[in-house]
Amino acid sequence: MSIKPKPLGPIPAGYEAVDGELAIGGRKASDLVAESGGTPLFVYSRDRLAARMDALRASMPYRLGINYAIKANPFEPLLEYMQPLVDGFDIASGGELAILREIGADMGRVSFAGPGKRDEELRAAIEAGVTLNTESEAEAHRALRIGDELGQTPRLAIRVNPDFDMKGSGMKMGGGAKPFGVDAERVPALGREIIAAGADWRGLHIYTGSQALDADAIIETQANVLQLADRIARDIGQPLPKLNMGGGFGIPYFFGDEELDISRIGDALTQKFDTLPETLESAHLCIELGRYLVGLAGVYLTRIVDRKVSHGETFLVTDGGLHHQLAASGNFGTVIRRNYPVAIASHFDAPADDLASVVGCLCTPLDRLADRAELPRAEVGDLVAVFCAGAYGATASPSAFLGQGPARQMLA
Amino acid sequence: MSIKPKPLGPIPAGYEAVDGELAIGGRKASDLVAESGGTPLFVYSRDRLAARMDALRASMPYRLGINYAIKANPFEPLLEYMQPLVDGFDIASGGELAILREIGADMGRVSFAGPGKRDEELRAAIEAGVTLNTESEAEAHRALRIGDELGQTPRLAIRVNPDFDMKGSGMKMGGGAKPFGVDAERVPALGREIIAAGADWRGLHIYTGSQALDADAIIETQANVLQLADRIARDIGQPLPKLNMGGGFGIPYFFGDEELDISRIGDALTQKFDTLPETLESAHLCIELGRYLVGLAGVYLTRIVDRKVSHGETFLVTDGGLHHQLAASGNFGTVIRRNYPVAIASHFDAPADDLASVVGCLCTPLDRLADRAELPRAEVGDLVAVFCAGAYGATASPSAFLGQGPARQMLA
Repeated sequence: MSIKPKPLGPIPAGYEAVDGELAIGGRKASDLVAESGGTPLFVYSRDRLAARMDALRASMPYRLGINYAIKANPFEPLLEYMQPLVDGFDIASGGELAILREIGADMGRVSFAGPGKRDEELRAAIEAGVTLNTESEAEAHRALRIGDELGQTPRLAIRVNPDFDMKGSGMKMGGGAKPFGVDAERVPALGREIIAAGADWRGLHIYTGSQALDADAIIETQANVLQLADRIARDIGQPLPKLNMGGGFGIPYFFGDEELDISRIGDALTQKFDTLPETLESAHLCIELGRYLVGLAGVYLTRIVDRKVSHGETFLVTDGGLHHQLAASGNFGTVIRRNYPVAIASHFDAPADDLASVVGCLCTPLDRLADRAELPRAEVGDLVAVFCAGAYGATASPSAFLGQGPARQMLA
Repeated sequence: MSIKPKPLGPIPAGYEAVDGELAIGGRKASDLVAESGGTPLFVYSRDRLAARMDALRASMPYRLGINYAIKANPFEPLLEYMQPLVDGFDIASGGELAILREIGADMGRVSFAGPGKRDEELRAAIEAGVTLNTESEAEAHRALRIGDELGQTPRLAIRVNPDFDMKGSGMKMGGGAKPFGVDAERVPALGREIIAAGADWRGLHIYTGSQALDADAIIETQANVLQLADRIARDIGQPLPKLNMGGGFGIPYFFGDEELDISRIGDALTQKFDTLPETLESAHLCIELGRYLVGLAGVYLTRIVDRKVSHGETFLVTDGGLHHQLAASGNFGTVIRRNYPVAIASHFDAPADDLASVVGCLCTPLDRLADRAELPRAEVGDLVAVFCAGAYGATASPSAFLGQGPARQMLA
């Protein structure tokens, strides 16, 4: 029998074994599971969150604001931990606004983007003092009207649909016809209208793509963003108060992926910031990151319920699955399924002398966490770890599917 | 500007306009939305559920049991409505068992398949008298042990991993190495062991695929299933008490798809049932269907929040999206995105003189409900209908994604 193994994604640096087991934040996986009450469990490491922010701050120009896009992971204890580390939060719905209210976030440092904002969401945001990145002329008009009704000055920025996108990004968000933002050539007129209407003008939001691992592509895109913002500001006729330059910093998920070189991005940005045009000199410049800040800080732990063989192939059946890890199963935003970094947490330092597929407990062939992977031999009761689980895991998966219910989550 | 339209899937027969609006169960979409409290809303039609069952019963041999696999749609009022119409329920988790307990289902008519059953799920099922379709030797042993501990005789069937799959099925569940069931050649030994251990032997479960629209493929597969079941029963050495022949009946989602010809399937099955081998003569024979029973009975209604133009293309931005309709967005189990049947519910009988893409409110380019579709002109406030929404909608989508929350659901 010769079954060709498929490579696993790269396990993030720094994970070590304690007593042979995967340790997260210095604590053994089995201890974390016991403390949380069971599997499946998402563990998010405080140390990794802090170290990531430190490294990013050290690379980026001092004046660059770094916002956290909470869509990547809105777990409340994680948001509370991130709040003092970042310069603001970006939200995408009234539901996310309500979460930030729960943790007592400073709404003056929150901005709200998203193409389908309902009137009640605009109202809640304006009342709270949240900046609205308006996605169309019609939405801007609704925001102005609701501000009038409330007797409150809305804080309005414009989300721009740029004429370019980010090369090599996993998901393009600009260039061509898009449901996001206002086409660049129509932005100056809308900007002047917003200013004339007496709104609190908060400048531009230019988002071009996500999950890029190519520093050159990001450097080029950021240069384009600054140039476009300058052009729009000149056309509007006044300097920009604020420019959200978007995000797009990716993380390595798959075999062959490499960490993004943020020092090169930081150096290029520092150079740019030294020679900013007049329109941007006094602007608040920021980026918004989700996945990059939290993705590598999370590990998903699931327990092996069955070890079975079918036609010579071994399957490790776990109590987790795509209902918590839709992206890892290859069913969200990817065309071809590739393996995430996966390990046997119970035997983290053991040699990979077995070949097995790790599947979830759902009764569907889509539910596969690792396909034909070289792993240490694992038995019923052992824990499996899926890495890169800090972003777009728990909330980006169909947790009610097949009645399995949500996973536990903890900060460790 | 010449933008090539993409075809929409076929709207299920029988939907009509009342006062120009889509009516469901004789009631206008806007009235249903008002009654339920708002959009997004899943409406499941009682009349359609009943008519579907009637047509199926009329086509199938009288002795064939028809079970409902509740994973397709576990909305409690729908389960309550289906209960007297079907011969049993099939479940895939302890969570689904708990739902059936809520509605007071007859547990003697429930069977439980799924590759990762935890001990506590086995225990709950055995205590309730649910039949376990065991997926491996190890699982069967666990069930026997737990039965002993409880002093209760477990009702055990074996799920078979057959040596063939269903041709043309959307999702293959048999043939080759699979995490589901026990490889056919190992089933007789396990069957004899279960019988010898004194369990309540419930026969076989042979599931081969899902979402097939080709009657010939289903006819051929059912013949193979009967043949395999006979072979296994003879090898075990006694007639089968029960055979669950699986499901696989598909529904038309996409342009060019046609309704499955169930009368041909029923005729072929009637013929087969007239000449059953001795091993199956007195067996309870059943099929299990999910999507086929409920898929076409559901409509997802979402309201247009913005109508915008980008580079000459029109986007209708709705308050719904992939957080309720992951499959319709093309992100679940499909490689190439194709349009589901979608209509402007507010102008259901109007000519399709506009070209627009319908997108959801999520801040991701994945969130598209209809791509470049020919539709009647629609404005903010109008309702959009996505058909084929009765199965794998609400619970098969990431409802917490971006904080948007779940959709409303109602039986009408």
